[in-house]
Parts: sequence; C-alpha cells; structure tokens
Amino acid sequence: MAPTADLRALLFDVFGTVVDWRGSIIREIDRIAADVDIALSAAEIADDWRGRYGPGMGRVLDGDEPYRNLDALHRELLLELLAEREIDLPGGVVDRLVSAWHRLLPWPDAVPGLTRLKARFVIATFSNGNVALLANMAKHAGLPWDVILTPELFATYKRDLDSYRRAIALLGLEPRQTMMVAAHPAELARVTTIGMRTAYVPRPLEFGIYDATTLDTEVPVDLIVNDLEHLARLLADPR
Amino acid sequence: MAPTADLRALLFDVFGTVVDWRGSIIREIDRIAADVDIALSAAEIADDWRGRYGPGMGRVLDGDEPYRNLDALHRELLLELLAEREIDLPGGVVDRLVSAWHRLLPWPDAVPGLTRLKARFVIATFSNGNVALLANMAKHAGLPWDVILTPELFATYKRDLDSYRRAIALLGLEPRQTMMVAAHPAELARVTTIGMRTAYVPRPLEFGIYDATTLDTEVPVDLIVNDLEHLARLLADPR
Repeated sequence: MAPTADLRALLFDVFGTVVDWRGSIIREIDRIAADVDIALSAAEIADDWRGRYGPGMGRVLDGDEPYRNLDALHRELLLELLAEREIDLPGGVVDRLVSAWHRLLPWPDAVPGLTRLKARFVIATFSNGNVALLANMAKHAGLPWDVILTPELFATYKRDLDSYRRAIALLGLEPRQTMMVAAHPAELARVTTIGMRTAYVPRPLEFGIYDATTLDTEVPVDLIVNDLEHLARLLADPR
Repeated sequence: MAPTADLRALLFDVFGTVVDWRGSIIREIDRIAADVDIALSAAEIADDWRGRYGPGMGRVLDGDEPYRNLDALHRELLLELLAEREIDLPGGVVDRLVSAWHRLLPWPDAVPGLTRLKARFVIATFSNGNVALLANMAKHAGLPWDVILTPELFATYKRDLDSYRRAIALLGLEPRQTMMVAAHPAELARVTTIGMRTAYVPRPLEFGIYDATTLDTEVPVDLIVNDLEHLARLLADPR
C-alpha cells in the first residue's frame, strides 16, 4: 500500500520530535541564572527535571495519584527537585520555569515541514502537554496545527493507548487513516498495535551531544525520515 | 476597564457567527438536486433540518437520550425529515448532505478578521459542532483557529454552561480573560453569568432575507461590532 493511500491525518509527538525541549529549557535556566545572579547547572537541572517526568506520570497511570495536567506536574516535579538540591529561587522564578515549557523552540525543519504537510493532511498534536501549553507553544513557535489533541482531554497520559483511539475518534477517523510521527521508537512500536501508521524522525540530539541517540533500525515503522521537511517531500509533495 | 485589559482568548460561536450555514446548505442541496435530478425545495429543507437541531439537543440535555456528536445528530434528524417528507434519496446523498456541514462557507469578513485577531489573542472555536466537523471546516474555509474547542469534548452541548467553564480551564484561563463572540444575544446573555466578556456580531441574514433578524439592543454585552474585521480593529490593532 502506498504510504499515503487513504491517509488523512498526521499526529505528532511534540517534545523532542517537533521542539527541542532540552536546548530550550537549558537556555531559559541560563537566562534566569543571569537575571537572578545564582549559579545553576542548567543542563543538569533540565535533565533531572525531565527525568522525573516518566515516573511522575507513572504514579498517576498506576492509580497511586490523581490525574494532573502537565503544567501542574511540571511544577510539582520542579519544586521536588529544588527542595532536594536545596536551591532557593526567588518568587516568580518557578512560574517562569514552568511556563518555559510553553515557549520551547522548534527544530529548524519543523515549521516548514508542518506547513507543507498541512496543505494535504490534518496535522494534530498528540502530546502529553496540556491544551494551554500546546496552544501557547504553537503561537510562540509558529506551529501551524489544525487541531490540538492531547490525552489531557481524557484525563490521562499517552502511555494509556486508549487515549490514541479516543483522539482518532474525535477526528472522525480510523487508526489506519492516521500516522503517528515521533522521535521515539518505543511509542511508534506501541501505536502500531492499534493500527496507526508510523513515521520515525530520529532526533539524535534530543538528549544533548553527550547522550546523543543512534538510529534504532529494529523499530518496525512505515517510514524513517531525516526530518519533517523530508516527511513532507515523501507524503505531501513528492516530485 | 479597557476591553482588552487582561484579555487573552476569544471563543467564537461558529454556525451563523463565522460561517453562513444556511446559504451553504441551500447551495449544497441545490447542487444535489441538479446532480440526482430530483426537485427539492432547498431553503425549506435547510430550515426544517436546522429547526430540528435545538429540540434534538434538548432531548439529550434533558437526559431522555444519550449524547451523540453533531455529525450523528445531523444524520438522524435528516433521516427523520426525509421520512416525514417522503423524500427518497439515492445512496451516498445522505452522507454528502451530512458532510456538507463540514464545508460551510465563511462570511466574507471572517478569515481576514480572525487572521488579525490571531496575531494578538488565542482564537478558538466554541461550537456544538464536533472536532472533526470543525477541523474539516477550518481546512476547507481557511479559518485559522489556534484551538478547536467544543462541548463534544465533555459529551454535552453548549446549553450546558459548565461546558464553557471546562473549555476555558483547558486554555488555562479564567472566564474574565476570555470573550465570547456570537451572533446570538441569548448565548451572550448566558455566558455573562459565568464572567466571560462578550462581543455581539449581528448577522441579520443568518436565517435568510425573509427572516432577517434585527439588532437586539437590549442584550447587555461589552461590544457590538459590525463584523469580525470591525472586532479586530477594536481589539487587535486599534489605530
């Protein structure tokens, strides 16, 4: 089957796939450190903060804690991190750090790639980010989404596969009419089990140059692309 | 208070306010009548179909029937109408009519007005239309929404005021930071009770020239505007 036969919508993982969360958060921490004149190891804090994200969502998915959206979770995890590291930040700085996730910057190919894909397909987010975070990020970064979809709408996170089915149903589509686009092989492997098509966009620098990821050639996907402009060439305007 | 002080997001009623549902549906019925060579009174059918919409949602809101999204409700109401009028349409035509609501055409000021408003505010739908309907309409008509919001996300319709509160919460905002934009005074009067700001855009021709509506000067709103370009001049780029 041609990769575009009956394909109607592309769902995008956002953190890592569309935006460079780590570089953006490090930049923001560096700016704050300069503004408030505190020495902060930006990369260490960014990685520690992000490292608490999976386990934080896990406690909710396992039923140990009630659902909170990502803004709320980011805040709690940051406060926990700051307490453990005995970092005392002035009032307002925590808000600024939490809202930094609304201002993440896109990889250079993201806006041109999405713009071309949008001409032919419905392009939607499917991110653990909450609606407000994703909408603010889209305005800030110029991401031209048709629809903001997130498991927040179902009070869950993406590890719950049913959230993909419900998001696809909101689009009035069947899974086979949709393609998940992500930098994370494990997510792509999971969504093939519900019948979504898949495009793998390796982002080797998502975790920085010292933890660069290598291409996972074992992941069974429909397409592997260099970036979102490459995806647009393959799907939207082959020539 | 200045109309824009702390204003962050505009929520738009869609049917009637942004798009000319009646003119669009009449055109579609006329085309179908020509294609299948059946005499159909397009305006009468359009008005009868739309007339069943309020009561149809009412039966759900009153708890007499389970929630269905607007595509499903449109289909049921059309089949009911066709049976009562003893109109027999060939297969495929019912689908084409139901999906005509995904292809409604905007009033001429809608796209330029929304485009200017988007530069300054989050612009979102808040319509009884379902996500798929609103997303397809946006692509077809070029409506540049930041976010597609609909009470479908909460399995209800707009008559349920709590659906507005929940939509605003998804944007991470308070009602006073939002403005409802609608052609329907009754809706605007209702949302002031939850603290939303209001802009009234009279659309005298929504129901056609023989049932043209007149300006309701009694409705207590923050702004009355001629159209969405006028709203943009007042809110987004006053000069």
